Amino acid sequence: MKRIVVLVGDGFCGWPSALGLSAQGHEVTIVDNLSRRRIDAELGAGSLTPITDITTRLAAWKRVTGRTIEFRAIDVAKDAEALGEAFREIAPDTVIHFAEQRAAPYSMRDAAHKHYTVDNNINGTNSVLASLVELGLDTHVVHLGTMGVYGYDGDGLEIPEGYLDVKVEAPDGRAYPRSILYPTQPGSIYHLTKSMDQLLFQFYARNDGLRITDLHQGIVWGTQTEQTRLDPELVNRFDYDGDYGTVLNRFLMQAASGYPLTVHGTGGQTRAFINIEDTVRCIMLAVANPPARGDKVKILNQVAETHRVRDLAALVAKVTGAEIALVDNPRKEAAENSLKVSNRSFRRLGLEPILLRDALLNETLEVVERFKHRANFDAVPARSLWTRKNRPGTVQRSSDAA
Amino acid sequence: MKRIVVLVGDGFCGWPSALGLSAQGHEVTIVDNLSRRRIDAELGAGSLTPITDITTRLAAWKRVTGRTIEFRAIDVAKDAEALGEAFREIAPDTVIHFAEQRAAPYSMRDAAHKHYTVDNNINGTNSVLASLVELGLDTHVVHLGTMGVYGYDGDGLEIPEGYLDVKVEAPDGRAYPRSILYPTQPGSIYHLTKSMDQLLFQFYARNDGLRITDLHQGIVWGTQTEQTRLDPELVNRFDYDGDYGTVLNRFLMQAASGYPLTVHGTGGQTRAFINIEDTVRCIMLAVANPPARGDKVKILNQVAETHRVRDLAALVAKVTGAEIALVDNPRKEAAENSLKVSNRSFRRLGLEPILLRDALLNETLEVVERFKHRANFDAVPARSLWTRKNRPGTVQRSSDAA
Repeated sequence: MKRIVVLVGDGFCGWPSALGLSAQGHEVTIVDNLSRRRIDAELGAGSLTPITDITTRLAAWKRVTGRTIEFRAIDVAKDAEALGEAFREIAPDTVIHFAEQRAAPYSMRDAAHKHYTVDNNINGTNSVLASLVELGLDTHVVHLGTMGVYGYDGDGLEIPEGYLDVKVEAPDGRAYPRSILYPTQPGSIYHLTKSMDQLLFQFYARNDGLRITDLHQGIVWGTQTEQTRLDPELVNRFDYDGDYGTVLNRFLMQAASGYPLTVHGTGGQTRAFINIEDTVRCIMLAVANPPARGDKVKILNQVAETHRVRDLAALVAKVTGAEIALVDNPRKEAAENSLKVSNRSFRRLGLEPILLRDALLNETLEVVERFKHRANFDAVPARSLWTRKNRPGTVQRSSDAA
Repeated sequence: MKRIVVLVGDGFCGWPSALGLSAQGHEVTIVDNLSRRRIDAELGAGSLTPITDITTRLAAWKRVTGRTIEFRAIDVAKDAEALGEAFREIAPDTVIHFAEQRAAPYSMRDAAHKHYTVDNNINGTNSVLASLVELGLDTHVVHLGTMGVYGYDGDGLEIPEGYLDVKVEAPDGRAYPRSILYPTQPGSIYHLTKSMDQLLFQFYARNDGLRITDLHQGIVWGTQTEQTRLDPELVNRFDYDGDYGTVLNRFLMQAASGYPLTVHGTGGQTRAFINIEDTVRCIMLAVANPPARGDKVKILNQVAETHRVRDLAALVAKVTGAEIALVDNPRKEAAENSLKVSNRSFRRLGLEPILLRDALLNETLEVVERFKHRANFDAVPARSLWTRKNRPGTVQRSSDAA
């Protein structure tokens, strides 16, 4: 059993991960500045599910399971001193680093939000690593990366796990083989910060021998896990707004409210997906399988499958009877792309991922139906624009343009 | 003639660059928070040359040449609002971005200095780019990068200018060619920030069409330029301490003070060098040759030649009669490396670089002799350590270890 610090254990992935690890018997401490709840207020669109405050959540966990999760209110990016003090006191075996602003549209709103995302994410990652080095701790850092670092304009070859084998031709015609970090092509400031994180990890693994696992995760769907279902006060958050709501959640909300499913552009974007229960399983597997000290960063693709966005819309339309509307794309991205991605490492560790099928949408649909009276439907369409030339992904705007 | 903002125009490269551009007739504004002077005080080792304060410097420039350089005190990393306001008012054709903490040893001192370097450098770069996008300005950004992003453990092939042509083998045996950002292998937190900058530039060039030139500069030697020689009050700074003093300056100071030249390890490290006068020439050439809007980032290697550190020591010993001491290496780096690097772009633009020869050390030696009474000799050896296993580069310590 390990001493584990979950940085931002109050968020959508962090909360169920903290519970899952606690249920396994690990000694878990959540560190969080609760910034995600502040942003709920900023956007006027909180979690659709009525999440309880962190104190109530943790008391419920204790009541239901008898297990204790500690909590410390620390801003990881801004208060390196408090973070270092927590690490010194806990001497964690593992730090799970979810402490990053994670919405691409939010990161693209304007200069201030670009600044916030870069400042928060990069300083946070560096503080975690620098603090562990300063304390001389041999802690395993597990970081939640993103598939978005690879970019979505590949040449059709399967995306490997973090590293790419290439050949460089010398003037004499000889080809030198090199294994390099996969060249990143992030599509938003948020994704960019995770590309920059990769360089931080590479440096600290190499200079200081830190043991680091970086998980390049696909888009998460679903809401509840085995642990969050145990009690209403343990419910996981559900984001449906145009900034934080991922594409499937947005479609389900639109279906529930009788609004057409807003597909950006042609819906030809292919993306990788994973269910929230598998997120938690992957975190557990990563915790249990650290790299050796001195190894290069262990990079794993945390994905189950890939889907084209218009196919997802068709699936939701079939289940719910909703209409589909092709609208302007607020993002600057390839209209159509193919995507093949390796997930061999997690498969080899025993992951048999949940795949998205009609039946499995039911739980999320039930969540949406049950709590849709709490929703701010104005917040559903995606309005954060990548450039001045982009237009919001709203049905009205699309007709205006047509 | 262009409107040019020089971010950190009070530093070692920024000051002579600002003067050079003003002398060419450009309308120059210096933006600086004077952090370098704060660090002088922190380290107890200021410029060996008696640099005047920024107001006196600029008044002297006006007195001597009749030209005006404006000054604004702004922290580029911390005060994005003031930076944006300055950009809005000036609407610069070119922004030259020197606003980064630039000493590798300083960046490796401890967690706090790692944090300062990352926070200052990354937020600064992002603020510059995000502000220009927000204002819709078509400004050319010229950034001072570093040769250190390439790393010093290459396979002997010539380092190209920023991009590397590789081939990726598909399962069917076909080889797909790709042109990628040269995979970085930075050797310190400082160098790491410039690797991360590259990803910021790649993103903003691609998403927003910003015109960006990134100059990967070698180690600078020399002190004065045509403009800084015009008046004692225009003198450029000279850093000799173990953190900010580059290797040649350190050797010259040690020679002047009768101390052995401290060569780290075997002195087998090969590095690229450039004279400060050529720094200014390269900046002028970069300003005059912006990439087109929508182009990828233009990356140029700003170097004249390469030297092995022990050969530099031998050169200084020959000129000055100083002894050489092989001491512990405070840095974690390859003991010996070869380095071939392309500088075709600047050559093609007409640069005929000054090469380091005996005769050319004279001016710097004169500077050292003239001002050595101002020096804090305790600050000369390099004491900032890369890891707990490294030892300071002091003569005593080396004997202890032997």
